[in-house]
Amino acid sequence: MARLVKGVRSFSSAASSLLAEAPVARSACQPESFQVFRDVPPLRQLRRQLLKNDRSVGFVPTMGALHEGHLSLIREAARENTDIFVSIYVNPTQFGVNEDLSSYPRTWDSDVEKLEKINKELAQIDAEESSGAVTGRITAIFAPTSKVMYPALPPSSEIDGEGSFVTITPLAKKLEGSSRPVFFRGVATVCMKLFNATTPDRVYFGQKDVQQTVIIKRMVQDFHIGTEVRIVETTRESDGLALSSRNVYLGDRRRAVGLTIYRSLKAAEQAYLAGKTSRDDILGAARSIADQVLSEQQALLPAERALFEVDYISLADPDTLDELEIVDPNKGAVLSTAFKMAPLEETTPGEDCGLGDGKVPVRLIDNLILRPQS
Amino acid sequence: MARLVKGVRSFSSAASSLLAEAPVARSACQPESFQVFRDVPPLRQLRRQLLKNDRSVGFVPTMGALHEGHLSLIREAARENTDIFVSIYVNPTQFGVNEDLSSYPRTWDSDVEKLEKINKELAQIDAEESSGAVTGRITAIFAPTSKVMYPALPPSSEIDGEGSFVTITPLAKKLEGSSRPVFFRGVATVCMKLFNATTPDRVYFGQKDVQQTVIIKRMVQDFHIGTEVRIVETTRESDGLALSSRNVYLGDRRRAVGLTIYRSLKAAEQAYLAGKTSRDDILGAARSIADQVLSEQQALLPAERALFEVDYISLADPDTLDELEIVDPNKGAVLSTAFKMAPLEETTPGEDCGLGDGKVPVRLIDNLILRPQS
Repeated sequence: MARLVKGVRSFSSAASSLLAEAPVARSACQPESFQVFRDVPPLRQLRRQLLKNDRSVGFVPTMGALHEGHLSLIREAARENTDIFVSIYVNPTQFGVNEDLSSYPRTWDSDVEKLEKINKELAQIDAEESSGAVTGRITAIFAPTSKVMYPALPPSSEIDGEGSFVTITPLAKKLEGSSRPVFFRGVATVCMKLFNATTPDRVYFGQKDVQQTVIIKRMVQDFHIGTEVRIVETTRESDGLALSSRNVYLGDRRRAVGLTIYRSLKAAEQAYLAGKTSRDDILGAARSIADQVLSEQQALLPAERALFEVDYISLADPDTLDELEIVDPNKGAVLSTAFKMAPLEETTPGEDCGLGDGKVPVRLIDNLILRPQS
Repeated sequence: MARLVKGVRSFSSAASSLLAEAPVARSACQPESFQVFRDVPPLRQLRRQLLKNDRSVGFVPTMGALHEGHLSLIREAARENTDIFVSIYVNPTQFGVNEDLSSYPRTWDSDVEKLEKINKELAQIDAEESSGAVTGRITAIFAPTSKVMYPALPPSSEIDGEGSFVTITPLAKKLEGSSRPVFFRGVATVCMKLFNATTPDRVYFGQKDVQQTVIIKRMVQDFHIGTEVRIVETTRESDGLALSSRNVYLGDRRRAVGLTIYRSLKAAEQAYLAGKTSRDDILGAARSIADQVLSEQQALLPAERALFEVDYISLADPDTLDELEIVDPNKGAVLSTAFKMAPLEETTPGEDCGLGDGKVPVRLIDNLILRPQS
């Protein structure tokens, strides 16, 4: 299926000449065509060609394990750009030494399948649209090796490790950063590399990783990166659970209990929408839901229950992520939380325990934006 | 002389429309015309226009206090690019808390005069050239405020200060970095910002700051910055003293003794060229010159002498800056040193003691590249 030509893999024989041809034209016959780039120079060549042809590039960075949340970023990018670049790279420097780098799901074939499918969907929309509105298509997948991303020194996950890094403090030390000290250094560093390699007009991030969105916006501002940061609403299951690549590890039992994370946030949001502005009132609403569910679970047998720990529930300023005692209704706030779903203690034969048989601890995060009440 | 229009100052009334006009044409009548940009968006607009017109940009970052060394970078840029962007910004984050940020020379008017003059010189070359070779011209000066360069948080000079930074380790900890812990973090950070603001085809740095050249090359490589790094030979006085903005503080007496830095390096280079490869032989040659001059000075009266301290003399690998015991003649080495010229102890009325009356300690650095001997 894939053909490797000088670091470029083409997923459509007709598209393999894309780089060589001066006018970068889109053919309606190959709506799903895109190229896979393993290194930067050929990608940069394509980018330059697109620039000369007044094409616009929307960039969606991913670590693969694509789900509907990623696809919603791609759909949003398609509304605003002629070309979409998607990167698939599991970045080692954002995983701590004891974190789940090795167990992070790697699903290349199904990722590519999903990207081909959404390109067909986008072509369909394009064909049906008579308004002349832009419906962009994925034209490049950037799937670099770690040697390409970290050419000089091996990627370090140590807090005092050596290498070339971007640090954004104090933002990176708060919330997720307080338990994952190298995480946002890794995220900022890899995003800087990816942004430079793709030089997109716009980049797309999901609201779900709210601290990441704040840090990336800060990085773009502070380093004068010539791109616009677009934040796309969190994609949820019908019951409200936020999509995450890590959800595959949950299984039925932990998935059901894991929904508590969303229910807690909704309760806090309700308090805010009902006019509460104090930290205690808003976060208290969330905590009482979490406490109640945890008590119920603890009362069950090990083969029936799913235990969890609330890592944090935060009510923070949208720009600085400083914790708030009182929400200014003119400014709003970020309500965010992390739950650690413990491994299942006992399982029943035939039970759906998820990838890893319920043994993998799963850290879930979620957030809601408390909008300004004008 | 200067006119401020929405963050753009124009140094030629005819050139003030440069941004508005679609074809960016160069008029032979205004060879010295360039615009001064105080903020990024209008500069980016010019850059985009140049890109569309297939013009190339060479970028020369400076902290002002321009001297022949800077002009040699500009001349080199003019040979390879149609347009030259020069930045003038004294970057606070590369000065340590106790370093000379406040006393660093700020010479805006004479800087602009020099840039106008060299633009005339370049126009002259252009007029005389019949070969059709490129002779670029300075078209933009970027002179941002600190609020533009550090928009979110005030620039910190503390090693554990907060902000958005680029760190390049272990390179940044060696040599100059060992006594100036925030220096290369500041340099890398400001260069990343400047590179993003100007997106040059090529950037120009002087060989004199050799560690800076190694770090910038590493940063460009590691972060996939789409620019070429050009290193230009150190410009020297006729007796060999490397030009530096800090030389104005020397005065006659310290200037004469300060030449020892160059003489030491030349002695070490001689040893290498004569076939020596061991650290002791090469650096010993440098040290004996420095020791001899220091003894001579110490024997003089306080009103006659200029004392100094050798901060380091280094023989290092050209890529990693690791200290070498033996030079591989196929690879060569970087020979570099820093001298601290102490304040004059006593001065004589009428003596030229330099800016600051000989009271400002002056740290001089210099280096020679020991080329591979094939």
